[in-house]
Amino acid sequence: MSSTQMNFADRASHRAWLAAQSALPSGFRVGVSRFDFTPAEVRRPAKMTLTLIALERPTADFAAVFTRNAFPGAPVIIGRSRLDGPSLAAIVVNNKISNVCAPGGVAAAERVCAEAARLLGFAPAEILPSSTGVIGWALPVDEMLRALPAAVGSLAGGSVMPAAEAIVTTDLYPKVRRATVGAGSIVGIAKGAGMIEPNMATMLVYLLTDLAVPRRELRRMLPWAVGPTFNAISVDSDTSTSDTVALLSSGRVPCRDLGAFERALLCVCGDLAEDVVRNGEGVRHVIRVSVVNAPDCESARALGKTVANAPLLKCAVAGNDPNVGRLVQAVGKHACSQAQAMDLSRMRLTLGGVEIFSAGAFRLDPAREAELVGHLRAAELYASAPPRDGVFTPPVDFPAHERCVEIGIDLGHGGGASAAVLGADLTHEYVSENADYRS
Amino acid sequence: MSSTQMNFADRASHRAWLAAQSALPSGFRVGVSRFDFTPAEVRRPAKMTLTLIALERPTADFAAVFTRNAFPGAPVIIGRSRLDGPSLAAIVVNNKISNVCAPGGVAAAERVCAEAARLLGFAPAEILPSSTGVIGWALPVDEMLRALPAAVGSLAGGSVMPAAEAIVTTDLYPKVRRATVGAGSIVGIAKGAGMIEPNMATMLVYLLTDLAVPRRELRRMLPWAVGPTFNAISVDSDTSTSDTVALLSSGRVPCRDLGAFERALLCVCGDLAEDVVRNGEGVRHVIRVSVVNAPDCESARALGKTVANAPLLKCAVAGNDPNVGRLVQAVGKHACSQAQAMDLSRMRLTLGGVEIFSAGAFRLDPAREAELVGHLRAAELYASAPPRDGVFTPPVDFPAHERCVEIGIDLGHGGGASAAVLGADLTHEYVSENADYRS
Repeated sequence: MSSTQMNFADRASHRAWLAAQSALPSGFRVGVSRFDFTPAEVRRPAKMTLTLIALERPTADFAAVFTRNAFPGAPVIIGRSRLDGPSLAAIVVNNKISNVCAPGGVAAAERVCAEAARLLGFAPAEILPSSTGVIGWALPVDEMLRALPAAVGSLAGGSVMPAAEAIVTTDLYPKVRRATVGAGSIVGIAKGAGMIEPNMATMLVYLLTDLAVPRRELRRMLPWAVGPTFNAISVDSDTSTSDTVALLSSGRVPCRDLGAFERALLCVCGDLAEDVVRNGEGVRHVIRVSVVNAPDCESARALGKTVANAPLLKCAVAGNDPNVGRLVQAVGKHACSQAQAMDLSRMRLTLGGVEIFSAGAFRLDPAREAELVGHLRAAELYASAPPRDGVFTPPVDFPAHERCVEIGIDLGHGGGASAAVLGADLTHEYVSENADYRS
Repeated sequence: MSSTQMNFADRASHRAWLAAQSALPSGFRVGVSRFDFTPAEVRRPAKMTLTLIALERPTADFAAVFTRNAFPGAPVIIGRSRLDGPSLAAIVVNNKISNVCAPGGVAAAERVCAEAARLLGFAPAEILPSSTGVIGWALPVDEMLRALPAAVGSLAGGSVMPAAEAIVTTDLYPKVRRATVGAGSIVGIAKGAGMIEPNMATMLVYLLTDLAVPRRELRRMLPWAVGPTFNAISVDSDTSTSDTVALLSSGRVPCRDLGAFERALLCVCGDLAEDVVRNGEGVRHVIRVSVVNAPDCESARALGKTVANAPLLKCAVAGNDPNVGRLVQAVGKHACSQAQAMDLSRMRLTLGGVEIFSAGAFRLDPAREAELVGHLRAAELYASAPPRDGVFTPPVDFPAHERCVEIGIDLGHGGGASAAVLGADLTHEYVSENADYRS
């Protein structure tokens, strides 16, 4: 899917590449404000960043898809209602607290929207709220209102980078992708890292374009682009309560080729989705599961998801161990959980292009084993080292390369449908990120 | 479920308790043989243990349930056919290689059965083969045939412990449970540890009884007992290709109360299932998810499974972190994956008996937070310590207590159905077990 080579020798070269990606489409500005506060639910100091993404004028041309989790956050509840409104003018994002199932969460988010609207000269219903972070805690509304003027004061065009850097939580680096269509562009930023198996959208993704594409077209294209991209990834099988992908057009540049726009949108979504996995919490290997010759795309993607989420396979990949029996176990587990029987008699499996299974049996020998180990090693993003303080921390803050562990599943079905799913290994760094920060 | 208090101060007291559990029902003998070999697929030395569980006379009264994984091992394929036979006389078990999807796997297992039958004086079709270990590798048949006479030579009655110790792979300690019914008993042993989310049975479980219960009753009771026990646990959501629960009666003791036998069977299955989770790979906390007031038992168990398998919740528990937002996320993820809408409007959540969520919102404050941390700490089986060599190894080889992290989900549905699922946390020790043994 990737439209750009992503092989970086160091942080500086990655940052230079990011800077080149970051030119804001015309008609947009971004601003940021950081502050300290104490969450009411615990008595530990915390930091929050407010991010504003503002249009110069309200636009009728916007689209969004949200999480299908049955407990959506207050910003998602409000965001769904904003879709019915005539126009949108800004997005106000906070990290640290996701405002999910907190008492009075919707009213709290609306207070922040109202104050942002007042400062920007828009209507409250033209502001889309967006939050990520701890589930269950309440927003520090008073502190957020006090921080808003600084965010508004810092609004500037030119680069989306301040917003890309401000929306993160456990991400190791900002994620920005762009595509140009004629004189206009689409620029997207993403916040990912953990609780990533989106169901209709991923954590927080903002896609900004100056190309004039009408609302009805944007709303047709966005779910179409999200399906094979954000809905085909999983870091840890957990579906966030805050997943949001929003697409806003400033309409500054005429769009003469809707097909080209649609392809560019798919490309930016695919690139950002891969970025989200590659910078997933503790990820050392990205795993691409390509299912081909399946009865239909939906079942191909479901099988790919089960394989990409199988913990023992993920651990084996983390250890550069071609324990391919765990791959067959995962396929067999998926099949036995399906209402309809799956025909697996013609299944062929490959790892790194090497055939390991066909006609119901494995094809393994020491030479092939060595080849498979080599494939896994080549896809490792960094070496894991036992830490002195017991907390495993990734030693990189840039993507060293774009190679994946390539798992191929050919079901040999005449239907000929296919799907690719991006997953990740299960590492000490993931456990440290999600368990070791307190004891 | 547990019929016995399981609070051990040290390995010695646990071993003494195990010894008292281990009296073999009359009519059974067990024998063991260990040997070195080199798997054909890799060139690394390995060790295998052969275990024989032999009846003194063939019995018609036996039952078994097997994995539903779509790629069952050769022993499972053979075992299903044995169910149609008139009698069974012995089980031959090997660890290290599970004989799944290896070329010629069924013929290899039958060769081992035939030699065991010859040595024991039974028919080959009266021998049930059983294997656990690496998937995809082929059995070292010649070495196994050479080791069989020693196993036969060591056959002895009295204690099941030699078999309980011989069938393990990554288990930290043997698992034995018993129940008495009148003058007879049921004794069960289990091999568990990893790839544990049984679908119809768990890894390898052998239930031996001297109570004379007819085959048709055994075959009715076993699936009934397996449902709320082995099918309601998950260490890592991965369904093994070898799961087997076999139940054999020597018929030596008349059974005057089938109902009492059935209850005793359920009790032994429940105890062994909890043992399998408590000694799961890397498990530091056992998590019990109790779903009550659900529309039906099946949906209650499915919800419990999703919660028990949510990686971020499992990591939080590992870190004694009451990150209860991740619990709501998991419930919401489950609901959005169901074909039928779930009514969650009356849902109440408790952790360690403390209400944390009701009427759609969390109830959190610093005092409650401290109470929840205390509950998690009390359920920890051992403290994790950063290792010098980078490989996390559990510092215990006995179950220190039988406490669980108690998660309560009250759906408030008039149906009033309930189910309990046992799961485990996700720890550095699990990752080490499954990734760090090679690099």
